[in-house]
Amino acid sequence: MSEVKVSVVPQEVSGQAAQESRNGRPLRIALFGFGTVASSVARILVEQKPQGLELTHVYSRSLARRRVDWVPSSVTWTDDADAVLASDVDVVVELAGGLDPAGGWVRRALGAGKSVVTANKKLIAYQGVELERLAGAKGGHLKYGAAVAGGIPVIPGLEQGLAGDRIERIEGILNGTCNFILSKMEEGAEYATVLAAAQAKGFAEADPTEDVGGFDARAKLAILMRLAMRVEVDPEEIVPRPITTVSAVDFSYARDLGCTIRQVARGEWTLGQVAATVGPMLVDLHSPLAFSRGTENMVIFTGHYGGDVVFSGHGAGGHPTAVAVVSDLLALAHGSRRVEIPSAPARVSGEFEVPHYIRFLVKDRPGIVAAITAALAEEKINIRAIVQKPGYPHDALPFVVTVEPCKSSTLQRALATMRTMDCFLVEPLDLQMLE
Amino acid sequence: MSEVKVSVVPQEVSGQAAQESRNGRPLRIALFGFGTVASSVARILVEQKPQGLELTHVYSRSLARRRVDWVPSSVTWTDDADAVLASDVDVVVELAGGLDPAGGWVRRALGAGKSVVTANKKLIAYQGVELERLAGAKGGHLKYGAAVAGGIPVIPGLEQGLAGDRIERIEGILNGTCNFILSKMEEGAEYATVLAAAQAKGFAEADPTEDVGGFDARAKLAILMRLAMRVEVDPEEIVPRPITTVSAVDFSYARDLGCTIRQVARGEWTLGQVAATVGPMLVDLHSPLAFSRGTENMVIFTGHYGGDVVFSGHGAGGHPTAVAVVSDLLALAHGSRRVEIPSAPARVSGEFEVPHYIRFLVKDRPGIVAAITAALAEEKINIRAIVQKPGYPHDALPFVVTVEPCKSSTLQRALATMRTMDCFLVEPLDLQMLE
Repeated sequence: MSEVKVSVVPQEVSGQAAQESRNGRPLRIALFGFGTVASSVARILVEQKPQGLELTHVYSRSLARRRVDWVPSSVTWTDDADAVLASDVDVVVELAGGLDPAGGWVRRALGAGKSVVTANKKLIAYQGVELERLAGAKGGHLKYGAAVAGGIPVIPGLEQGLAGDRIERIEGILNGTCNFILSKMEEGAEYATVLAAAQAKGFAEADPTEDVGGFDARAKLAILMRLAMRVEVDPEEIVPRPITTVSAVDFSYARDLGCTIRQVARGEWTLGQVAATVGPMLVDLHSPLAFSRGTENMVIFTGHYGGDVVFSGHGAGGHPTAVAVVSDLLALAHGSRRVEIPSAPARVSGEFEVPHYIRFLVKDRPGIVAAITAALAEEKINIRAIVQKPGYPHDALPFVVTVEPCKSSTLQRALATMRTMDCFLVEPLDLQMLE
Repeated sequence: MSEVKVSVVPQEVSGQAAQESRNGRPLRIALFGFGTVASSVARILVEQKPQGLELTHVYSRSLARRRVDWVPSSVTWTDDADAVLASDVDVVVELAGGLDPAGGWVRRALGAGKSVVTANKKLIAYQGVELERLAGAKGGHLKYGAAVAGGIPVIPGLEQGLAGDRIERIEGILNGTCNFILSKMEEGAEYATVLAAAQAKGFAEADPTEDVGGFDARAKLAILMRLAMRVEVDPEEIVPRPITTVSAVDFSYARDLGCTIRQVARGEWTLGQVAATVGPMLVDLHSPLAFSRGTENMVIFTGHYGGDVVFSGHGAGGHPTAVAVVSDLLALAHGSRRVEIPSAPARVSGEFEVPHYIRFLVKDRPGIVAAITAALAEEKINIRAIVQKPGYPHDALPFVVTVEPCKSSTLQRALATMRTMDCFLVEPLDLQMLE
């Protein structure tokens, strides 16, 4: 083909990574971190030898402990991050996690026109917009398919396959630890027992707050909201509710209502604004969310045109997450580009209009139900059902009230009124009911 | 930026479509056909005005009947396909279906360096490899995310998000009509009644052979096998089995075995070769496939590294399928490219090693079970269960034998022996049992 002149470098082939891949030379890849996921990435690269990808560097702070002998001898192992960033690698695969120092490495790599593939949900949730701008300006690419739902191609499926829709709602089971705990509690286990089992199996941290408190899931939800609903939200504005307040009695009552309980991350255009929340919710036993068990993840997108689309699979684990990382690397090597639909900053409301489940634990005496129902009536909240199962002691009596759809803020006002009562042994527990 | 010289036109920016989109002018889009899906595509383009896409032409053979007033007056309506193909449109969206004349239009558009977006599973299953080569040679792009599972982003999710895995098995509910019929039969309806209802609702054809005979699903399976398992197979080599042989009694027996029945399209690396088949199969009531109801589609990919990934949603219908088409158009406009993992031609075997369900309908007399079990024993097939429910007449008695995993060919030999018996009122029905 004859020589042609182009007056600008088209954005899609600018940048060090893209320019070099088009010369037919494989993308030179540096792994930052060598824990479970990074080791699985190396494993796939070594075993499958995907065309166009070459592992050249592994950076780890604890080299001596991490080094493995099944990686080709051509790979440079180092504990000097600066040296790798200054080298001729095309893609930095950041798998160290957290904002610091990972964020600094990512920023420096992108600033140098390199591309970055990361599984770092926190970094992307908090700084993704800025980092994507930096990548765009310097000609590199930022990919993070592994940051949400691990091995399930939610982000590529969404970006490349649902861009033509207008997504109105996201409901996700985005934290495998919580799903493991709650689906085991559904089978009758107690929270503390299951948490200990999860910790022993290595899929719950010694301090489980990030998971059970909903912080991990809200970071992932914020990422999905930007890509699906095109709103840039501050994850801190999404108020998470912990799963620790849910007890065996709630599963028992939920079952009677034809439901079970899952930690759901939920974002929605509702009441004219963007609402989002993360926490334990009642889900119908016939819904896909109830079907999700163990450490599985699941995401349901509801599109204006396409209706519900469900993705599920292994949300975490070394190998599944590594598949997402290697897929991102292949997409880079093959010149696949993001479908960048513009997004805009938005505030997050916590206001949903849904039915609620409220569980009370009281020292029984006459007049409690009257007072509770009066507090609901005062806020014009309609009661759907009052359920009190036999067999509980009077001095620690659990019972449940479910209410017709009402605004979260309205319910909170009614609960504030109830809190002035002296009969509650623990705070009343209110959970959204998904329909 | 200063002028740069490049000595070749990089493939990713060659071709009319890509060159023109990079000039910032929207992609000019021609719809070929204006049925349900095309009309929904136009609807989304008109309502959502996605950046970078401009509907300029609608070709239809029955213009007078199809023309609508909500499409902008700038759009050219024509019944002259040649004129549209000779025009300056960048992308031909082929939604007429079938091999002819659609294949000719697609070939001419690609030959002229235009890009093509299509929902035509038959064309892609039979000629996709050749058409992609043509697109590559002429600098255009061929996209067909809508060809399999309509609104569910199975193809983009697979190409962009699972490329890093080695997919070993595909199990799909790929035909909404069959799923509607079988999930209604599960609830107690008879085949003929449900088929009539499906025809009345417009999601079964007057001649339903393409759907119920498994031909539609096998075309989709062939496409998925190429993208997921990287094998180019001739769809004709996949032997489909019709769902018409399944009757109410099979659902009753299936239920007793903890199963239900679905039309499953199945491709797998097994016994050292590529095996594929489409037909009614027993699926465990706890499996995702059993969970799929109505016209829903579902695909499960089993990866060597990532395990099972499940996609589900609306596999057909104007709006969901249109979302896939518009998403493909957006991907083109944004410079997203296929992750082209090499595939190679392969022969298809029908040989699976799985447990089977065999239902007999006999005019009862002594010795039938003895003869049947002897035929199985002769082929060294182990019986798992023999079930004969009470309440059926002796002159038309259905009963079921399930067998431990054995090769399909071995079972067929045993069935051939049994067919010499004169007691069967209909051919014994053998179904694979998915585990």
